[in-house]
Amino acid sequence: MTSAASNPKKEIRVNAFALHSPVHHSPGMWRHPRDRSLEYNTLDYWVDLAKTLERSLIDSLFMADSIGVNDVHGGNLDTALRHGAQVPKQDPLMSLSAMAYATRNLGLCVTSNANHEPPYVFARRMSTLDHLTRGRIGWNIVTGFAKSSVKVLGKDQVASRDERYDIADEYMDVVYKLWESSWENGASVRDTATGVFADPSKVHRVDHEGKYFRVQGIHMTEPSPQRTPVLFQAGSSARGQRFAGHHAEGIYLSGPSKKVLTPVVAGTRAEAVKAGRDARDIQFFTMATIITGRTTREARDKYEDYRRYVTPEAALAMFSGWTGIDFSTYDPDEPIRYMQLDAGTSSALEGFTRLDPERIWTVRELALHNAIGGRGPVFIGAPNEVADALEDWVDETDIDGFNLSYAVTPEAYEDFADLIVPELQARGRYKTRYAPGTLREKLGGRSSLLNERHPGAAFRRYPSRPLRNTP
Amino acid sequence: MTSAASNPKKEIRVNAFALHSPVHHSPGMWRHPRDRSLEYNTLDYWVDLAKTLERSLIDSLFMADSIGVNDVHGGNLDTALRHGAQVPKQDPLMSLSAMAYATRNLGLCVTSNANHEPPYVFARRMSTLDHLTRGRIGWNIVTGFAKSSVKVLGKDQVASRDERYDIADEYMDVVYKLWESSWENGASVRDTATGVFADPSKVHRVDHEGKYFRVQGIHMTEPSPQRTPVLFQAGSSARGQRFAGHHAEGIYLSGPSKKVLTPVVAGTRAEAVKAGRDARDIQFFTMATIITGRTTREARDKYEDYRRYVTPEAALAMFSGWTGIDFSTYDPDEPIRYMQLDAGTSSALEGFTRLDPERIWTVRELALHNAIGGRGPVFIGAPNEVADALEDWVDETDIDGFNLSYAVTPEAYEDFADLIVPELQARGRYKTRYAPGTLREKLGGRSSLLNERHPGAAFRRYPSRPLRNTP
Repeated sequence: MTSAASNPKKEIRVNAFALHSPVHHSPGMWRHPRDRSLEYNTLDYWVDLAKTLERSLIDSLFMADSIGVNDVHGGNLDTALRHGAQVPKQDPLMSLSAMAYATRNLGLCVTSNANHEPPYVFARRMSTLDHLTRGRIGWNIVTGFAKSSVKVLGKDQVASRDERYDIADEYMDVVYKLWESSWENGASVRDTATGVFADPSKVHRVDHEGKYFRVQGIHMTEPSPQRTPVLFQAGSSARGQRFAGHHAEGIYLSGPSKKVLTPVVAGTRAEAVKAGRDARDIQFFTMATIITGRTTREARDKYEDYRRYVTPEAALAMFSGWTGIDFSTYDPDEPIRYMQLDAGTSSALEGFTRLDPERIWTVRELALHNAIGGRGPVFIGAPNEVADALEDWVDETDIDGFNLSYAVTPEAYEDFADLIVPELQARGRYKTRYAPGTLREKLGGRSSLLNERHPGAAFRRYPSRPLRNTP
Repeated sequence: MTSAASNPKKEIRVNAFALHSPVHHSPGMWRHPRDRSLEYNTLDYWVDLAKTLERSLIDSLFMADSIGVNDVHGGNLDTALRHGAQVPKQDPLMSLSAMAYATRNLGLCVTSNANHEPPYVFARRMSTLDHLTRGRIGWNIVTGFAKSSVKVLGKDQVASRDERYDIADEYMDVVYKLWESSWENGASVRDTATGVFADPSKVHRVDHEGKYFRVQGIHMTEPSPQRTPVLFQAGSSARGQRFAGHHAEGIYLSGPSKKVLTPVVAGTRAEAVKAGRDARDIQFFTMATIITGRTTREARDKYEDYRRYVTPEAALAMFSGWTGIDFSTYDPDEPIRYMQLDAGTSSALEGFTRLDPERIWTVRELALHNAIGGRGPVFIGAPNEVADALEDWVDETDIDGFNLSYAVTPEAYEDFADLIVPELQARGRYKTRYAPGTLREKLGGRSSLLNERHPGAAFRRYPSRPLRNTP
C-alpha cells in the first residue's frame, strides 16, 4: 500500500518561490513588458506580491538566498552580471516585516545560512520575526558554501560536506536550546498590577560547550508563538537526507520528472522514521512553474510569448554555477552523457542539479530547457490540464505540494489565483480558507510548537509543564 | 567666536530614541495605563510609532541595541528580568521594512555591532535596507562588547578598547570598499531593449587582505541611493572620539548638563578637523526626555502621575549594568564621590555614564533620578518652557539637536507633535516640512552620498566620473 493510495485526495499545498534578484529561474524575463522583476529592490513589489499570494491562499512565500555567485561560466561573473542572473541579490530577511504587516495568514519562510552569523544572534533574529509576524516564520536551513561565498567570508576552504553537516547539527542544538529551553512557559508574566514583567526563576541560562560553538546566556527574547520556526531543508545527498530526516518539517525539492522525485521523497521519509519521527512529519514541496490561460491555446500563446524573452546564455551560466561545470567550454550540440557533481557545489543547490536520467541532453537543449522554470517541470495548459498534472505529481511521487516558481511575476501568481485555485478547489484538492493559528498549525500541525517526536522537543527542560505559549 | 554665536538660529533636529524592549530609559512605565511598551514585540506598535514620528517631522527613529544584559546588579539577571529592564530585547533590524513601508520621509537609524557578523554579510544587509527604504537608512556603529555578550558569542575575553577600535577601523575599510568602490555609477544598466542588466566592466571585485578581515568578491547589491548609510556613533572615550571624528556624520550623546556636553562636542569636532573634515560635518544629538502639557501645571501633573509608576530598583540595575558597578551592595544613602568606569563596560554605553561632576549623589538619588529619562535631562513644562530649554541646550553646547527618549510611549511623541513642534516652528527653530531626497540630504547633506571630505569617499575608484546614483 503506497502512501498516496492511502490518502488519495490529500490537499495540495503551495508555496511561492522567490529570490531578491532581478532573475530567479527564468533569465531574461525581466524584459517582458508585464514583468515586475526589476522592482525586486522595492518594498512595493514585495508587499504587492505578498497580497497576491494571500489572495491565492498560498501557504507561504519561500525566499531563496545565498551569497554565492554564478562565476563558473567562462571562469568569471560577466555573463551572470550582464543578465542579472541571480546577481545582484539582496538580503531577503529585510523585506519580511513589510510583507507581514500587509498580510494576516501568509507564511514567510526565509533561507538563512548557518555559517553567516553566530547561532545566538541568529536565534534572536528568528525569534524577533516570529513575534512580529505572530508565528508565521519558517527557516530554510542552509549549511553549504559556494566557493565564491567562502572568499567573501574570508575563509580558506570549503569544509567537507560531512563536516558541514556536523557543524550544522551542533548549530541546531544551540538554537534549539535557546528557543525551547531558556524561557519556560509562564516565565513571561507581564503583570501591570504587581509590576512583574518576567519570573526570573523560570528563565534559564543556556550553557553550551561544543566542538564548534560555545554559548553561555539566556535567550534574548520571550518565547515567540512557535518558539522554533517551521524548519525547512533542501539538501538531497545521503548526508543531507539524514540531516533533513532529523530536523526538517518541510523539504524543498526540485526534479525534472516524477520518477526522479519519488525515491528522494521515500528516502527522506525513511530517514525521519529512523530518527524516531513519523514519515508524515515531513512535507515535500517540489519546484514547478505554471503557465496557464483560460484555454489551452491561450496558455500556449502565453508560453510562446514568454519564450521570446528568454536568454539561454544566462540559463547556462546559472546551470554552470549550480553544477560547478563550465558549460561555456562545451560545443552547444555536445551531448552530456554523464555529469559529475563538483563536491564543493553548495549543498543548498543540490536539489536543483538532478538531470533526467531518461534522456540525453545537448548543452544547447539544456540551456533552452532551463531558460524558463529552471530545474523543475513547467506545466503549460488550461486550468484543468494543469490541475491534472499537479494531482498526478502529488499522487504518484508522494509529495505534499509545490514550490511555485514563475516565468513572469506577479502574473504567474495572479493566474494561479484566478485560474488554478478555483479548479483545484472544485476538485477538493485545495483549501478554501487558511487554517487558524501559526504557520505550523496552518500546515497541519496540531500545535504551534514542534511536535513531541521532533529532536528539538528533547531540549525542553520542563516536559511535565504544559507547553502552551504565553500570549 | 563660538560656533553657536555664528549660527544663532540653527534649526533644531530631533531623532526619536527606541529599544525593542519593554523598557528603554524609564523602567516601570510599561505599567502606565496609556503606555504601549508591552507591545514592543508587535508590528502594530512600531508602525503606529513611525507614523506618529513622521507627523512630528522627526528626522529619524534611532533604534538602540545590544545583546548584553544588565547582570551586574546583585551579580545576576534577576532584577533586570523581573522588571523587563532592557531584557528581553529583540533584533531592531527586523521591524524596519514595515515602518519604511508605512512612511515616506522618516529616517531609520539602527544600531548594529560590527562584531556580530562578517562585514560582507552586514554590508549587503545595509545596502538592501537602503534600497528598500529609498535611501533612509542610518547605521549607529557599535564596536563594543558587554561581558555578557562575549559569553553568548563564545569568545574568551573582551578585546581592549584600543584593539576594538582597530578592528572597527578595518571593518569600516571593508564596508566602504564594498559600498563605494565595487559598483561604478552607471554599472547598473537595466536596459530592457538590449537585455543588459549590468555592465560587467563597471563592476569590480573588492580584494581586502587585512589584519582582521579578508574579503574577495564583488558587493552583492547594486548601488543603493546613499551607498554608505548615514553613519552615527556614540563613543566618547578619547579613542572613541577619534574614531567618531573620522567616521561619524552624527553622534548620539548623553549627559546630565550642558557643562558636561560642551567639551565632548568641541573635542569630537576637533577630531573631525584633524581627520581632514569640517567641524560641521558631524551633527550631535543628545538624549533628552520631554514631559509637557498645555500649561506648566498640566506638565507637572503628568510628571507626578508618571512618577507613581517608576521602579527605582530597575533603574539601579540598569545603571549597574552601564557602569559595571554593583549598586545593590551600596547603602542607599551612601554618597558616590568618585566613580571609576569599568574598562570592560560596553563603549556603546559610555555616553550614558557621565555623572554630573557638580554635585554629590547618593545611591538612592541616583536610582530615582534615573528612573525617568535615564542619563539625559528631563524637560518638564509648558511648550514655551520646554522650547526655551531646547534652544538653550543647542545654543550653549553647540549640539545640533536631540535624541528624544520618552517616559510614556507613544504619548511622548504625540505631545511633541501637538505641543512642541508648533512652538519651535513659531520660533523658526524647527522645519515645517521634510527636505526632499535621502536621509543624508534631509539632514543637510548636499548629496545623497558621503561628502568628499569623508574618509569613505577615498575608497571610490572613479573620482573623475560623476558620482550620481543609478535610478
